[in-house]
Amino acid sequence: MRSEERNFNQMRTIKITTDYIKHPNGSVLIEFGDTKVICNASIEDTVPRFLKGQGTGWLTAEYSMLPQSTHSRNQRESQKGKLSGRTQEISRLIGRSLRAVVDMELMGEKTLIVDCDVIQADGGTRTASISGAFVATYIAFKRLLNDGLIEKNPIKNYISAVSLGYVEGKLLLDLDYNEDSNADVDMNLVATNDGKIVELQGTAEKEAFDIKQLNEMIELGLDGIKNIYEAQKQAIELWEKQ
Amino acid sequence: MRSEERNFNQMRTIKITTDYIKHPNGSVLIEFGDTKVICNASIEDTVPRFLKGQGTGWLTAEYSMLPQSTHSRNQRESQKGKLSGRTQEISRLIGRSLRAVVDMELMGEKTLIVDCDVIQADGGTRTASISGAFVATYIAFKRLLNDGLIEKNPIKNYISAVSLGYVEGKLLLDLDYNEDSNADVDMNLVATNDGKIVELQGTAEKEAFDIKQLNEMIELGLDGIKNIYEAQKQAIELWEKQ
Amino acid sequence: MRSEERNFNQMRTIKITTDYIKHPNGSVLIEFGDTKVICNASIEDTVPRFLKGQGTGWLTAEYSMLPQSTHSRNQRESQKGKLSGRTQEISRLIGRSLRAVVDMELMGEKTLIVDCDVIQADGGTRTASISGAFVATYIAFKRLLNDGLIEKNPIKNYISAVSLGYVEGKLLLDLDYNEDSNADVDMNLVATNDGKIVELQGTAEKEAFDIKQLNEMIELGLDGIKNIYEAQKQAIELWEKQ
Amino acid sequence: MRSEERNFNQMRTIKITTDYIKHPNGSVLIEFGDTKVICNASIEDTVPRFLKGQGTGWLTAEYSMLPQSTHSRNQRESQKGKLSGRTQEISRLIGRSLRAVVDMELMGEKTLIVDCDVIQADGGTRTASISGAFVATYIAFKRLLNDGLIEKNPIKNYISAVSLGYVEGKLLLDLDYNEDSNADVDMNLVATNDGKIVELQGTAEKEAFDIKQLNEMIELGLDGIKNIYEAQKQAIELWEKQ
Amino acid sequence: MRSEERNFNQMRTIKITTDYIKHPNGSVLIEFGDTKVICNASIEDTVPRFLKGQGTGWLTAEYSMLPQSTHSRNQRESQKGKLSGRTQEISRLIGRSLRAVVDMELMGEKTLIVDCDVIQADGGTRTASISGAFVATYIAFKRLLNDGLIEKNPIKNYISAVSLGYVEGKLLLDLDYNEDSNADVDMNLVATNDGKIVELQGTAEKEAFDIKQLNEMIELGLDGIKNIYEAQKQAIELWEKQ
Amino acid sequence: MRSEERNFNQMRTIKITTDYIKHPNGSVLIEFGDTKVICNASIEDTVPRFLKGQGTGWLTAEYSMLPQSTHSRNQRESQKGKLSGRTQEISRLIGRSLRAVVDMELMGEKTLIVDCDVIQADGGTRTASISGAFVATYIAFKRLLNDGLIEKNPIKNYISAVSLGYVEGKLLLDLDYNEDSNADVDMNLVATNDGKIVELQGTAEKEAFDIKQLNEMIELGLDGIKNIYEAQKQAIELWEKQ
Repeated sequence: MRSEERNFNQMRTIKITTDYIKHPNGSVLIEFGDTKVICNASIEDTVPRFLKGQGTGWLTAEYSMLPQSTHSRNQRESQKGKLSGRTQEISRLIGRSLRAVVDMELMGEKTLIVDCDVIQADGGTRTASISGAFVATYIAFKRLLNDGLIEKNPIKNYISAVSLGYVEGKLLLDLDYNEDSNADVDMNLVATNDGKIVELQGTAEKEAFDIKQLNEMIELGLDGIKNIYEAQKQAIELWEKQ
Repeated sequence: MRSEERNFNQMRTIKITTDYIKHPNGSVLIEFGDTKVICNASIEDTVPRFLKGQGTGWLTAEYSMLPQSTHSRNQRESQKGKLSGRTQEISRLIGRSLRAVVDMELMGEKTLIVDCDVIQADGGTRTASISGAFVATYIAFKRLLNDGLIEKNPIKNYISAVSLGYVEGKLLLDLDYNEDSNADVDMNLVATNDGKIVELQGTAEKEAFDIKQLNEMIELGLDGIKNIYEAQKQAIELWEKQ
Repeated sequence: MRSEERNFNQMRTIKITTDYIKHPNGSVLIEFGDTKVICNASIEDTVPRFLKGQGTGWLTAEYSMLPQSTHSRNQRESQKGKLSGRTQEISRLIGRSLRAVVDMELMGEKTLIVDCDVIQADGGTRTASISGAFVATYIAFKRLLNDGLIEKNPIKNYISAVSLGYVEGKLLLDLDYNEDSNADVDMNLVATNDGKIVELQGTAEKEAFDIKQLNEMIELGLDGIKNIYEAQKQAIELWEKQ
Repeated sequence: MRSEERNFNQMRTIKITTDYIKHPNGSVLIEFGDTKVICNASIEDTVPRFLKGQGTGWLTAEYSMLPQSTHSRNQRESQKGKLSGRTQEISRLIGRSLRAVVDMELMGEKTLIVDCDVIQADGGTRTASISGAFVATYIAFKRLLNDGLIEKNPIKNYISAVSLGYVEGKLLLDLDYNEDSNADVDMNLVATNDGKIVELQGTAEKEAFDIKQLNEMIELGLDGIKNIYEAQKQAIELWEKQ
Repeated sequence: MRSEERNFNQMRTIKITTDYIKHPNGSVLIEFGDTKVICNASIEDTVPRFLKGQGTGWLTAEYSMLPQSTHSRNQRESQKGKLSGRTQEISRLIGRSLRAVVDMELMGEKTLIVDCDVIQADGGTRTASISGAFVATYIAFKRLLNDGLIEKNPIKNYISAVSLGYVEGKLLLDLDYNEDSNADVDMNLVATNDGKIVELQGTAEKEAFDIKQLNEMIELGLDGIKNIYEAQKQAIELWEKQ
Repeated sequence: MRSEERNFNQMRTIKITTDYIKHPNGSVLIEFGDTKVICNASIEDTVPRFLKGQGTGWLTAEYSMLPQSTHSRNQRESQKGKLSGRTQEISRLIGRSLRAVVDMELMGEKTLIVDCDVIQADGGTRTASISGAFVATYIAFKRLLNDGLIEKNPIKNYISAVSLGYVEGKLLLDLDYNEDSNADVDMNLVATNDGKIVELQGTAEKEAFDIKQLNEMIELGLDGIKNIYEAQKQAIELWEKQ
């Protein structure tokens, strides 16, 4: 039996709380079931050196987990003095995904930094992070627009991410920690609200897969993307009505 | 006018949410007004090398701030590859304060690690951390006791901490960020519920102070300690009733 | 016009030189056109701590580029004091790919470490690394087998990797540096010799893609995998005849 | 019996050797009994970035111990690759204490750096460091003044520091290593020559303390401050007479 | 019997392959018997800060070994996060040796960086590195000259390096790994083609040596220098004829 | 005119103060003119991993300079988070030199660590360090012998070191900072009291040198070695008479 007594093609309950923290330009707490991530987006009036003087902006992301967000405590990366490969890989993935739907030329020489800090982990922390980071980014840009600091919203599309995989031979959407630990194939799909794929990462943890299975996975994943898009849209509309 | 329209000798509203996160043995969200800190306490079945084989336990703490918890974003210490002096100083202070009220011989060869992660900062993050860390520690030990893993609760006393200082010539309790930035004298007081001082740190930011002023500060601080003690007791009683 | 006057579905010339360096158990220089990678595989009589005492082996990989292997010199990561996210991401990918075709229980408590050092870079360094690392790994295990140190070859399948992508609207196999810099979509496919997918990473650099395009990419990629498999088999047979 | 057969309210012998090393602007060897610290002060024609262009100066300090200054050898922090929390905490305390008596606006855009290197440790290394650092700072500024590089001496007051505490129930001034290791309460007091407190750090190592004990400690500490002030004044007068 | 059945005063076979890698300004694979080093030289249009605005150039070198270049695998220094003393010592030696024969004022404000990466080690890696780095440097400058980017070749002299030592009482030239491991005295001699010494490092590994032995060693070493010079000259002439 | 109005073949005044610091087994302040180095030697009851269980001892050294020991302040290596190449090179040289005169099999499984901390630098800090480290080592072993912790003194010979070089065409012994900065050739010679060479490092800073010059340098250097030996012997005899 899946958590929340879900069907194979059902997402966990998605909750998006906007304006979670008061200082960032955009701040969101996103929950995919028991996975909870704080996504904060702030604008800085500078760009990395390789973009100086080109009139275009930049967007970057950082991902981290609180030490006790997981089943057993993890040592802080600030204590170890270096970032793990996993942390850097996910941070790069979040930044790449958001940049795919942002027209950075409309930002001017500004940098948007999104911090995704997992406070409770139960599988799917990277997909929840991307999905929540989008909402925080949207709100941050909307505030810039409202304050007249940019002329046009640089967001071209909604974007979200979902995990899925084969667990004991069955295809499942939005894996929680237990399912993820037992997955034969594990896939993360990042896509826009019109079903175009922006990033696709599939890994055969135990069993290699063929094209047919790949197509089944993509179709199921795009269903999940639609659900997350609905939740994002609703949260943004609610925020805009305030 | 102070935030929350407070009197000089009034604390900001204190909120303590227990069982905030599901994995740690004890987990608390503590709020002093707009300052919000997640305090998680976990037990590990090991002790640092200098204690191996002595049958006694250990307790240590780590403090950190989310990058966007403050007015302008701070670079992650994991990115810089090292801990700032301030982070280490506060981590050591929290650990020292908790050890003062814990009989570590009753723990057996276990280590309790408390992580205090500031998610929103508005002054007094270290005093809120100590006060919340105590509740998380209490609950963690209580769970150990309930599970029969220790025979007696190692907690000897309640402990909490409060900040205070002279701001533009006036003595104020529980400084928020604006007050703290303008303080002439800044003090942090850590004390037990029976008014005994465990740690005292006073710094003349602009004006040195004399013994008379010191006594006024201590008396006001001990009033604050009583208020926090009440909030801690209430939160723990509520948790125990569940 | 593509380099080597290739068709859209043609690989660059693949060259595999075995026993390139004398100390490792397996040593290969692999060339995909102008991309040249030294892949060395060595066995150590130990396993990481999390596997101690379980009777099973481990396999890990490290990827690096010589500072002057690229168009303009890169600072050494040993000088910077830390590994970039890209380096760690590729190292993890190589290790994961090889582990998918190795039965680590047949290794005993040994670790195989593969080092992939790029000496000349012209696109596809990670796919050449995986393809060459497989041959080095195969030879290293074969030597162990010949020396009676293991009873059965732990290799279950051949594995190789290829890059492909849409460049100015056209689908191309095995991108060189110029093509890769201009790709709209960039994909890396890791698959076994029987066409099963082990790892799939697709990134929309400029244009998101749909399921139809995805299927075209996979089919083209699997053609490339066949070509690399032929080159690997030939190199191994030649080595075994010596 | 205390070392040097002292009374409870007596300091160890204080020795201050000026012009100890030839390169710094001010150089002092300070001894509190067997505790020996080299305090060197140098002026640099620059300020930290956050002060650039404001016409004001800065003062900072660094504290360190030679590896064999203590009973058993300590590993160098340059070997470990990072500073301990204790080192940073004391460095920050020394800097804060000196800044309290220096009018940095009179310095122009210069930075004074004081290095306190403990060559022999027997308790009270931080209080000896502050007391010696003041003399080195005074002499450095006096040389600047004599050379016409500043117009007015930026020093507003003398400052010094002393340790004290309850050891086996008895209040003692200026703890040596043995006393410090057995202290129930440990206090460091930094004060000006007119008895105003600049920094106060009290820690209950074994027993929490009340307001009455705090007042006794402060009074005893201020007596010690007077003694150190006399030694500082004498050393500076002697230096000025040369 | 020595490797390659050499006499005591014979070098191993020297092979120098020019234009080994395509991106650097000068690229050489040098082999002293089984010791193989890739030496790449690139020009950058900048100088270190201490030389800015002085119209002169700079030359620096970095040495490294591939992890599996040696008998048993070495951990990467990029993994450890720091350079070993040995690596830094050899890097500094290579740079110093090359600067001795380059008139850096003729370079303009450019920096030449030579990377020496050992791909197979069998003794004498530092002497092979210096000897190969010279050829790479020569070619890099010659290309600059041909492209009209400098007016005169800054190279004043040829330079090369050789190892030698007493092994079981016998003086031997160009030690391989086995000989080096058993040497009583170990010397590295860096000299110009006219027999002038630029760097001399002699270490008594087991037996101290006297002036007479020193002279014997120098004379033998200068014979070796002549041989390497011949190989360098031939390689450069061949390259120039292309 | 040379400092101290010395002849070309004269050392600066050598002063050796024994028992300089109280905690180490051997502690020496050595002065070569204005160069002052604290050399502390301590014994630890452990050996590095590669020697465990072999019944033999180890000896290692660490060199460092106080930040204000030089003309202008140097940043601490503990602040930078890493050791410079120069520091590691000198540390390794000191260790190698001492090991040449110590029979480590007589030590048992103990490690002697010598710390050489330069408190004032005026040229020749590495040669003064070696010469002082020897005396500290001698005394440390003598104390072990007196306490019955070893049976025989492991010291086989005296060892010391001297610098020399050609400055403006003239050969000079024991260069001070000004001379060293202007040297054409710079040599460090480490030798035993019977004139056998243990380590020789000659660098042509501006002019390469020939065999004849090398011999002149060695002869002059060995004269210096004799002088230092006399000073070492006298200091040790004085210490033994106490």
